[in-house]
Amino acid sequence: MPVAASRGLKAWIWPRPPESTIWFAEFVVLGRLFFNVGSSTAGGSRMSADSAAVTRIVEAFAECWNRHDMNAFAELFAPDAEFVNVVGLWWKGRAEIKAAHEFTHQTLFKNSRLTLVELSTRFPTPQIAIARCRWRLVGHVTPQGIPLPERQGVLLNVLRQQDGKWFIIDSQNTDIIEGVASRPQ
Amino acid sequence: MPVAASRGLKAWIWPRPPESTIWFAEFVVLGRLFFNVGSSTAGGSRMSADSAAVTRIVEAFAECWNRHDMNAFAELFAPDAEFVNVVGLWWKGRAEIKAAHEFTHQTLFKNSRLTLVELSTRFPTPQIAIARCRWRLVGHVTPQGIPLPERQGVLLNVLRQQDGKWFIIDSQNTDIIEGVASRPQ
Repeated sequence: MPVAASRGLKAWIWPRPPESTIWFAEFVVLGRLFFNVGSSTAGGSRMSADSAAVTRIVEAFAECWNRHDMNAFAELFAPDAEFVNVVGLWWKGRAEIKAAHEFTHQTLFKNSRLTLVELSTRFPTPQIAIARCRWRLVGHVTPQGIPLPERQGVLLNVLRQQDGKWFIIDSQNTDIIEGVASRPQ
Repeated sequence: MPVAASRGLKAWIWPRPPESTIWFAEFVVLGRLFFNVGSSTAGGSRMSADSAAVTRIVEAFAECWNRHDMNAFAELFAPDAEFVNVVGLWWKGRAEIKAAHEFTHQTLFKNSRLTLVELSTRFPTPQIAIARCRWRLVGHVTPQGIPLPERQGVLLNVLRQQDGKWFIIDSQNTDIIEGVASRPQ
């Protein structure tokens, strides 16, 4: 696909690509974390506390990843949580999520570092949060141990509050592939 | 990555690949639609009616796609819905979701056909549904109009009930890439 055609296509598909891309890149380069927490159905101090709690859980996702502590990572998830990774592997339940990440953090992601940016959280009901962020990953390798270039993606976490505590009940992850509107051809 | 290594890796990552793959393939081949609707927090006839309503919305996603009716497609979404597509494009609001799909359904997906299989729906609260399914897509083309092979993926829809009606409030889509645990190297 020619670059010009690709850019024209992308401008149609994603009305704000240049600004978003630059803005995203700025935060990635500066290594800063930006959290934009909003609510579509509720407000007030209770919601602020919940927003802070949800933000802490999502931050912990990256913190556990970066110290490769899959015990702590798994505790962020509800027992019946589901997780779909960037190649469509669909894990059902905390045990599967933990086992899969334990394996990749002993291999592909052993020395990887995940940085989350541009977190946006919505509360469709007071007990449910939809938290989406972009991310960048560095330090990952092939199954043969060969270093790979930086990757970026979009991570969705759905969280539920239970007994005053927030847990991830669903995650789906998608790689960002620049310059195309659909899967690369 | 050698096939044997890939299979070994995948067996670790996804504890049920052979059965799931065969089972999935069977439904794809037969063109049948299988809906597995469960609930983690509630039951009874009210929930059955909600399960049926959510199933209809997810079925309508594919029906609108297949007749390339983006007006009807957009009406499935709440005004403030978000959508992340398979290459990480992040659309915010019904208008962006509609515009992006109008464009692709005039080009890449003009004659494409989407089939949803293995729908699984959970209700973390009575007003929220998490509906995930696998899908296959045929009949899509490159930006230059060249036919592309079948693709498969995993689609997550989060729905909210408002005034007795269910709307998609969030979608994230991920391509299935066989034989790898993470992005292909």
